[in-house]
Amino acid sequence: MAEIHWQRKDLLGIAELSREEIELILDTAESFSEVAERPIKKVPTLRGKTVINLFFEPSTRTRSSFEIAEKRLSSDSLNFSASASALTKGESLIDTAMNLQAMSPDLVVIRHAYPGSPHMLARRLEAGVINAGDGAHEHPTQALLDAFTIRRHKGGLSGLKVAIIGDIEHSRVVRSNIHLLTKMGSEVTVAGPRTMMPVGLDKLGANVVFSLEEALDGADVVMMLRVQLERQARTLLPSVREYFHLFGLTRERLKAAKEDAIVMHPGPMNRGTEITSDVADGSRSVILEQVANGVAVRMAVLYLLSGVHEETA
Amino acid sequence: MAEIHWQRKDLLGIAELSREEIELILDTAESFSEVAERPIKKVPTLRGKTVINLFFEPSTRTRSSFEIAEKRLSSDSLNFSASASALTKGESLIDTAMNLQAMSPDLVVIRHAYPGSPHMLARRLEAGVINAGDGAHEHPTQALLDAFTIRRHKGGLSGLKVAIIGDIEHSRVVRSNIHLLTKMGSEVTVAGPRTMMPVGLDKLGANVVFSLEEALDGADVVMMLRVQLERQARTLLPSVREYFHLFGLTRERLKAAKEDAIVMHPGPMNRGTEITSDVADGSRSVILEQVANGVAVRMAVLYLLSGVHEETA
Amino acid sequence: MAEIHWQRKDLLGIAELSREEIELILDTAESFSEVAERPIKKVPTLRGKTVINLFFEPSTRTRSSFEIAEKRLSSDSLNFSASASALTKGESLIDTAMNLQAMSPDLVVIRHAYPGSPHMLARRLEAGVINAGDGAHEHPTQALLDAFTIRRHKGGLSGLKVAIIGDIEHSRVVRSNIHLLTKMGSEVTVAGPRTMMPVGLDKLGANVVFSLEEALDGADVVMMLRVQLERQARTLLPSVREYFHLFGLTRERLKAAKEDAIVMHPGPMNRGTEITSDVADGSRSVILEQVANGVAVRMAVLYLLSGVHEETA
Repeated sequence: MAEIHWQRKDLLGIAELSREEIELILDTAESFSEVAERPIKKVPTLRGKTVINLFFEPSTRTRSSFEIAEKRLSSDSLNFSASASALTKGESLIDTAMNLQAMSPDLVVIRHAYPGSPHMLARRLEAGVINAGDGAHEHPTQALLDAFTIRRHKGGLSGLKVAIIGDIEHSRVVRSNIHLLTKMGSEVTVAGPRTMMPVGLDKLGANVVFSLEEALDGADVVMMLRVQLERQARTLLPSVREYFHLFGLTRERLKAAKEDAIVMHPGPMNRGTEITSDVADGSRSVILEQVANGVAVRMAVLYLLSGVHEETA
Repeated sequence: MAEIHWQRKDLLGIAELSREEIELILDTAESFSEVAERPIKKVPTLRGKTVINLFFEPSTRTRSSFEIAEKRLSSDSLNFSASASALTKGESLIDTAMNLQAMSPDLVVIRHAYPGSPHMLARRLEAGVINAGDGAHEHPTQALLDAFTIRRHKGGLSGLKVAIIGDIEHSRVVRSNIHLLTKMGSEVTVAGPRTMMPVGLDKLGANVVFSLEEALDGADVVMMLRVQLERQARTLLPSVREYFHLFGLTRERLKAAKEDAIVMHPGPMNRGTEITSDVADGSRSVILEQVANGVAVRMAVLYLLSGVHEETA
Repeated sequence: MAEIHWQRKDLLGIAELSREEIELILDTAESFSEVAERPIKKVPTLRGKTVINLFFEPSTRTRSSFEIAEKRLSSDSLNFSASASALTKGESLIDTAMNLQAMSPDLVVIRHAYPGSPHMLARRLEAGVINAGDGAHEHPTQALLDAFTIRRHKGGLSGLKVAIIGDIEHSRVVRSNIHLLTKMGSEVTVAGPRTMMPVGLDKLGANVVFSLEEALDGADVVMMLRVQLERQARTLLPSVREYFHLFGLTRERLKAAKEDAIVMHPGPMNRGTEITSDVADGSRSVILEQVANGVAVRMAVLYLLSGVHEETA
C-alpha cells in the first residue's frame, strides 16, 4: 500500500473528518474489498490485536459486519452485549469501559443509544474507539460504505444529486451521510413527512423538501430510509398505508430520477412500506452491494485505527 | 484422502442422498475422528473460510458441536441467534439470508422451526447450506452421526434390526434416521403411543408397532427419543408415569433385544421418563459416543460442502 | 521457563493449594503479564486446545478476562450461558457436562450458583476444570489476581496487614482471599455489619472486627467488597446511606491505614456506597491493575492446567 497519513486514534463521526481522510478510508477499503473474493478470505494484518465489540443496542448487520471484518483481518474479537453485562448490576458505562481498557484491547467498537457515548469513551480509553451508531447522532461507517458504493457506480462523489427519503429526524444514517456527501461535493436533498423533519438541516448543507417527487427529480442516487414501524407508526405517521402512498418508492416513481440512478437502503427494509419489492430487488438496486462493501470499509477503518501501518513503516 | 466425488452444494436432508453419498460422508468422518485425540486438535483445512451459524431455535449440543467442528477445521465462525437478530425488527428470513450472503460466507448452518426453511435458503444463497434441524422435518447430521456410531459398533448398516421408540410424530431425528437406515439396508421398527404416531410411515419403509416389547424383539440397535415433557406431556400423554410404564427403557426390558444390542439417544435425556439411568449409563449405552462422533461427522460435512477438496485437487 | 512441578488437573479452590503451588501460579503469571504490552498480543502456547466457558450466572468481567486470556494463548474457546443451554430443557448439570466432555475439550471454566458444582464436574470430566466462582464458596482466580497485585506493590505477601471490608458472609472473594493470604503469611482482618458476618471465620485464621476504623488501623492493603444492593439492601442493611456512613471508604478514613496502603476492589463498584470516587480513582487505588493482572493470572492457570509444559518437556 502507498504511504498513509492517518492521525486519528478514533472514528467518532463524519463531521470531523477532512476530505482527504474520507478519501483515504475509501481507497484503503478498495484494496481490502477483493479479500472477500479469495478462496482464503483472510489476511494476517491485525494478528494479535484485540477488538472488543460493545453493543448496547441489538444489531445483526452492523455487528456481524464488524465481526466478519475483524476475523478476516485475523484479530481476536470479543462480543459484549448489554444484557450480559455488568451494566445490569448498575455499573456505569465509564467503569465498564475502564475495566475493558485494563485488559489492553487495541480497538473498541461501540453502539449505544446515547449520542456522544463513543466520544466519552474515546477520551478515557487508550484504545481506538469506533462509533457503530450513537442514538440519532452519527453512524460513520454506514456513511462511508454508502459513499464507497456510490463512488464505485458513479466514479466519484462530486457533482452528484443525492435524494434521501424517510424519517430524517431520527436517523443517524442521514446525519452522517449529509456530512460526508456535502463535504465531497454532492448535492443532498432530503424529503419526508413534516413530523419527521428536524429544524436546521439547511445549516448542514442539505436541501429540504416535503414531497418524494421533488426529491427524486434528476437524482443520481436515491437513498431510502427505514420507517421505524415499531416506534413511530403510532405517533408520527398517519398510517403505514398513507406513508407508502406519500413516500414509498415504486418503479413508477423512480422514473423521476435519472435513468441510471442507483437505489440504496441501509436495511433492514420494510418491503411495501418505504420501498416495493420490485425496486428493492430490481436492476438499479445496490442494496446488497452496500452490505458487501460494509465489510471492506470496516476492514479499512479497523486497519487505519490499529496503527499497524505505522508499526510496519 | 482418496479421490472424492461430492457434487452437492447443500446438505438439506437424508431423503435426497444416495447410498454412495452417505458412505462418503461416513468415510470422511472416519478420517476426521482422530483429530479429537490429538494434542493439537486442529487442522488447517478450512482456514480463511467463513461459516455462519444461524440458530432460530435454542440449542446447546447441536450448535456447540458445529462450532467445535468449525474451529477444529480452522474456519472463522459467526453465531447468530434469533433474539439478537434483525428478525425482531420484522425482517424476513430471506432478507436476513441475502444480507448474510452479501458478506460472502462459504457455509451457512441453519436451525429453524419451519420445515423447508433450509431449502428456501439454499435456493437463494451461493453459500452451502447445512440443515441443523427444520421443525419436525429433517435433521440430517444427527442421522449421519447415528449411522456413524452404529457402523463403528456393528461393522455396517445392512441387515440390522433398529428399533426407534418414543414420540415418532414430532421427531425430525426419526424421519432422517428412517430415510438413512432403510436406504442402507437396515430394518427399522418404530414404536410409541398412538397419539404420537403419524400415518404413512410404512411408505417410508418402517414397521410400525405400538408396544415397546415388540419393537425391541431381536433388535441390534435401540434408539430412544426424548419425550418433550414441556409441550406434550399435558396433551398427548396420559402421564409421565404411564409413559414410563409403557415405553420407558429399563435394564429388564432391554433383555428382549439382542445380547449385544447398543442403546442410543439423541439427547438431552429425561432420565426416568424414557430411559432409566442404569441403562443410559450402562455398558451397552453409546450415547456419549454419539456426541463425540457428532463433531467428526460435522467436520466431514463442512469439509465436503466447502469445496476445498476441489480447490486442492 | 524454568522447570515446572504442577500436578493438579483442576483449580477448584485456594483451600487445597500449597504455598508452592500458589507461588508457581504467581511466578508463571509474571512471565505472561508482558504479553499484553506487546504489539502482537498472542502466544501460540495453547494452539489447538479447546476451552469451554460454562457460565450459569451472568458475568462480564470474569468471563471476558478468561476469554481474552484464552485467545491470547491461541486456544479455541466456546461460550455457553445458562439461558441458551439445554438446562432450560431440564437436563442436569452432569449430563450437560458429560456431553461437553464427549466433544473432547481440554479445559472447562465454570461459574455456577451452587457451591461445589465445579468439584462435581471435576470428578466426572477428563478435562481440567477451573472454578470461576461457585456461589459464596470460592473464586480462586480472583484471589490469585489479588495476590499478584499485592505482591507487585509490596514485594511479597508475608507479614502484611490486609483489611477486607463489606459483606463478608456472601462473598466467595473473601473466602478465597482469606485462604490464600493466611497461607502466605499475611494477617487478615475482616470488618462488616453483624448481619453480614458469618460465624467461624476465626477458624479460617482471620480477625473479625465490626468497625471500619479498627480494620483499617495500620493496614498495608485495603480490600473493599461490593454491596449487593439488588439483594441485600432491603433485608440486611438498614439503608445504603447508613452503610456508607459505617463502612464506606473515604479519603479521610483511609488515613487510618499505612501511608503507602493500596486500595483494592473486585468490581463492579458501587461508587458512593462502599467507596467514594476520589478513593476509587485516587493514587492509592490499584483497582484497574487488578483487572489487567486478572488476564495474566488466568493465562497462567490455563497454561498450567493444560499440561502443555509436560508435552513439550
